[in-house]
Amino acid sequence: MTSVNEAMDLIARGADEILVKDELKKKLESGKPLNIKAGFDPTAPDLHLGHTVLINKLRQFQLLGHRVIFLIGDFTGMIGDPSGKSATRPPLTKEQVKENAESYQQQVFKILDPELTEVAFNSSWMDKMNAADVVRLASNYTVARMLERDDFNKRYKSNQSIAIHEFLYPLVQGYDSVALDADVELGGTDQKFNLLVGRQLQEAHSKAPQVVITMPILEGLDGVQKMSKSLNNYIGIDEAANDMFGKIMSVSDELMWRYFELLSFRPMDEIRGFKKEVEDGANPRDIKFKLAEEIITRFHDAKAADAAQLDFINRFSNNEIPDDISEVEIIVDSEGMPLANVLKEAGLVSSTSDAHRMVKQGAVKIDGERIEDSKQILTLDFSAVIQVGKRKFARVKLIS
Amino acid sequence: MTSVNEAMDLIARGADEILVKDELKKKLESGKPLNIKAGFDPTAPDLHLGHTVLINKLRQFQLLGHRVIFLIGDFTGMIGDPSGKSATRPPLTKEQVKENAESYQQQVFKILDPELTEVAFNSSWMDKMNAADVVRLASNYTVARMLERDDFNKRYKSNQSIAIHEFLYPLVQGYDSVALDADVELGGTDQKFNLLVGRQLQEAHSKAPQVVITMPILEGLDGVQKMSKSLNNYIGIDEAANDMFGKIMSVSDELMWRYFELLSFRPMDEIRGFKKEVEDGANPRDIKFKLAEEIITRFHDAKAADAAQLDFINRFSNNEIPDDISEVEIIVDSEGMPLANVLKEAGLVSSTSDAHRMVKQGAVKIDGERIEDSKQILTLDFSAVIQVGKRKFARVKLIS
Repeated sequence: MTSVNEAMDLIARGADEILVKDELKKKLESGKPLNIKAGFDPTAPDLHLGHTVLINKLRQFQLLGHRVIFLIGDFTGMIGDPSGKSATRPPLTKEQVKENAESYQQQVFKILDPELTEVAFNSSWMDKMNAADVVRLASNYTVARMLERDDFNKRYKSNQSIAIHEFLYPLVQGYDSVALDADVELGGTDQKFNLLVGRQLQEAHSKAPQVVITMPILEGLDGVQKMSKSLNNYIGIDEAANDMFGKIMSVSDELMWRYFELLSFRPMDEIRGFKKEVEDGANPRDIKFKLAEEIITRFHDAKAADAAQLDFINRFSNNEIPDDISEVEIIVDSEGMPLANVLKEAGLVSSTSDAHRMVKQGAVKIDGERIEDSKQILTLDFSAVIQVGKRKFARVKLIS
Repeated sequence: MTSVNEAMDLIARGADEILVKDELKKKLESGKPLNIKAGFDPTAPDLHLGHTVLINKLRQFQLLGHRVIFLIGDFTGMIGDPSGKSATRPPLTKEQVKENAESYQQQVFKILDPELTEVAFNSSWMDKMNAADVVRLASNYTVARMLERDDFNKRYKSNQSIAIHEFLYPLVQGYDSVALDADVELGGTDQKFNLLVGRQLQEAHSKAPQVVITMPILEGLDGVQKMSKSLNNYIGIDEAANDMFGKIMSVSDELMWRYFELLSFRPMDEIRGFKKEVEDGANPRDIKFKLAEEIITRFHDAKAADAAQLDFINRFSNNEIPDDISEVEIIVDSEGMPLANVLKEAGLVSSTSDAHRMVKQGAVKIDGERIEDSKQILTLDFSAVIQVGKRKFARVKLIS
């Protein structure tokens, strides 16, 4: 049995904010299984480790005996962009929503326990609402408070238009908490405003307000920008084991501790022990192996993790990667820069013709993968470890 | 047959604004009967002449062969005040709405032709809308434009709260024009914003935008503030013929022309003729008789009008009312002032004991009615002709 204090510690791990801590403590003290809500877009999911920060927190609640409600916000998804301004947000059909939901489950059940997870769709209650119900819902919140939301505030002040239906969406999201009797809702820090609307609507419906827990946005492989597909600094949970392994090994020794806190289920005490080991002289690479192993075991299996580690060690010529690789930032314009020039700028070769030659000889690797085209263009936000020959390494970033 | 230009003149009579005149002209030129919409609250109606300014304009459209849609906004009425802040706006039941609608018809059909009037309820289409429909409706308008509405703007700037559902009501009202295919919508000048929302929503639904006609707010008997029950400066359309007659006769000679323009169906040429007569020395009282006669015939009948005129003449001792009665304004606080003191302040008696005595003798009349209690309190916004004995008159107003 975990004590309430231990549970509080586990829940607080990595969390950005808990609103309100005392309320959470009381709910935990009740001993009842709590309803833990998290909402997801109904668009086609392709999760990366950044998304799993929140899902891991849901899993921790399950480990504490609570019930996770994985809420798919299909009501708004089936409306699409009613202003018709965005061609990229066509309305989803019931079938698409169902397919996407199944794809979600396939992915999240690599982390969550299906037995303790309820998948819900907000169309179940929103489709039953009539116009009068929406008017009543909208009466629970003021224009001024809605305009306090960061993005609305910025757009209003800079004369960018906000359509009135955009004011309804946070209310719909908040009403979901009423419909689900949510005790706790998790979301990214960017969701804080919407999560708090849920609290207010629950109170307006004479229900106990949910505790709001915001989780930080995970940094991508570059350690600076948020992990995202469009920045190409992500690790997808469906990626091949070898790719995952290489990418995890490419994160900096500093960022590794952040990943441990947010992505590993090892107890914090153990992680603090690792940190102590490194301070006492252990090779950070060996600790990073443990992180990579845990994550690959989660999304593939233990065998795949072992194989990926072996492959990694072989590719990088039996540990010849230096412990501290120099970091090089190269300023490029929006057109990017050919690889040969990048190699020269990074000081890995003496000239571009040297670069062409080294590539031709198969001596150049990016994140452990052999490169064959020295003319390929690397673009803005490129960030990877480049190796030339056996001993020259640099972590290279292209910046603007 | 009325020409389009004559029709335009008739429609423009007394109107505050016509948006857009050219569009109206084109619609009239089409020769088709137009849908003329006016919306009314579903609360218990008790119409006074102020309300009839707009109804008269509807009647003029009927005289031109167009179809009036008398729209009762019962959708919002059946929601009441969803914020629960106003105890005075409980939701109406279907039965109450039906009763009120019947009472409305009873009253407005004293002016409108029932054959050319359709009574519609916006619940007919609003009750069929679901939440997604409301979201789509709300997507047609921006927050910034809604905040341009005068009252919203003032409240927002002075930090008075605006609940989000209040943004939905102008959209519902506007959507009514879409549902009804309104060609023209009439409203008070205070409704201009909402009427223009109708134009925009029709365009968003690929329909021809309605022409918006705003009618001025009629001044009450005092000639200053708008006619309203709460200011007690009104003439109810269900009032007894004698009372109506006395009240109409109490309006100033100046205000009479305004009432002629907005309340009479006499051609403007004829009214201009009356004005000329007065300028040439005719007694304005005799012209005012014509106005009183027309209005009382409309709401009672010709016989009642004649009787009321006779009664009026008798009550005021065969024309002993001077043509120009002096106007007296007396400043009072919110508690008002006893009649005896008012009489003294107005210079109609020499002292309050003189006042008590005159009242006791039955020598004091207010708007032609004998008064028996000299201690009665007259309150702020009191405005009437007070007569003491046969020759002393004053039009007395209590102001703050």
